[in-house]
Amino acid sequence: MTRPRTVNDEDLLDRIDRALSSRRTSGTWTLQEVAPAAGISPAGLIKRFGSKADLLHALARRWIDLVPSSPTEQEPEEELRAYVSAEFEAPSAGAAIFALEELLADLRTPESNSLLREGWDKQARYLGQLLSAMRLPRLVDPPRGALLLLDALHGSLYRRGVDLRPSPPTDTLDQLMEAWT
Amino acid sequence: MTRPRTVNDEDLLDRIDRALSSRRTSGTWTLQEVAPAAGISPAGLIKRFGSKADLLHALARRWIDLVPSSPTEQEPEEELRAYVSAEFEAPSAGAAIFALEELLADLRTPESNSLLREGWDKQARYLGQLLSAMRLPRLVDPPRGALLLLDALHGSLYRRGVDLRPSPPTDTLDQLMEAWT
Repeated sequence: MTRPRTVNDEDLLDRIDRALSSRRTSGTWTLQEVAPAAGISPAGLIKRFGSKADLLHALARRWIDLVPSSPTEQEPEEELRAYVSAEFEAPSAGAAIFALEELLADLRTPESNSLLREGWDKQARYLGQLLSAMRLPRLVDPPRGALLLLDALHGSLYRRGVDLRPSPPTDTLDQLMEAWT
Repeated sequence: MTRPRTVNDEDLLDRIDRALSSRRTSGTWTLQEVAPAAGISPAGLIKRFGSKADLLHALARRWIDLVPSSPTEQEPEEELRAYVSAEFEAPSAGAAIFALEELLADLRTPESNSLLREGWDKQARYLGQLLSAMRLPRLVDPPRGALLLLDALHGSLYRRGVDLRPSPPTDTLDQLMEAWT
């Protein structure tokens, strides 16, 4: 039980996550398809994580763990901008649709739905802390503002999915910051 | 060809739309399931609209037609508030998930994706006209503000789907209007 594995679960999940994020087409994926990216056989992947649903839960759990619990850097605006870019940028309409499909699959089962709520809640708290630390005199209620920012970023992904005047997530942030300054 | 039908297509689509909107569960639906609400047999529905995909396109086209081309009432704020309530309110998490599922089905095929882009574009223009007509001194670019509002309303539906501090769409509107006033 304690013998270390050559590649740990975190590394495997990280590789799978990157393989899924770089898919250019939308549509469902299979363990067979992602296993090579993880440098492991489909059977090995099943042995390690169980079913595809279990793997999705492990990916969601890892995503939640990676949301910072509190601001880490010195400059909150810089940190906020970097986080928003890294988390909400979709390189293409296809990538946006794929992200939305993953999300919707998550909404359908109670366990995944609850993981999604937990992750967004953690993100909203983190964004709220960053907004609190910034000079935004017109933002009276940072936790409420953080939910608005999160909503707008998700909606912007949708808009990317239909190629309606797509804009980077930092544009959404800029527009809200201008209004709150 | 010119003999009038007892129930016209608009009325049928309206009934089907209301039947779908009042569903309490998420998941796919069948022509068999919605036909009774339309007061027509499944075979009659197919004869009138074709496949389920064709029916979805007819529903999308009707949705687009119903987006106002320009403000209609005297008081833009009142009109905006009423429109936002009517279009973006989800009575439950299940209803929100159902709406998102329909939306995602639309993203998947080029024809539906293009209808969705057309509808959102029309909505954004309408919202932009209403915002322009209001006294919002801090809103420099109403068309850009309309896209932000649309994004935030869509994101709020998502949030409703996971029951994360759900808030009515008018809250989203209020928060943006406070920032722009």
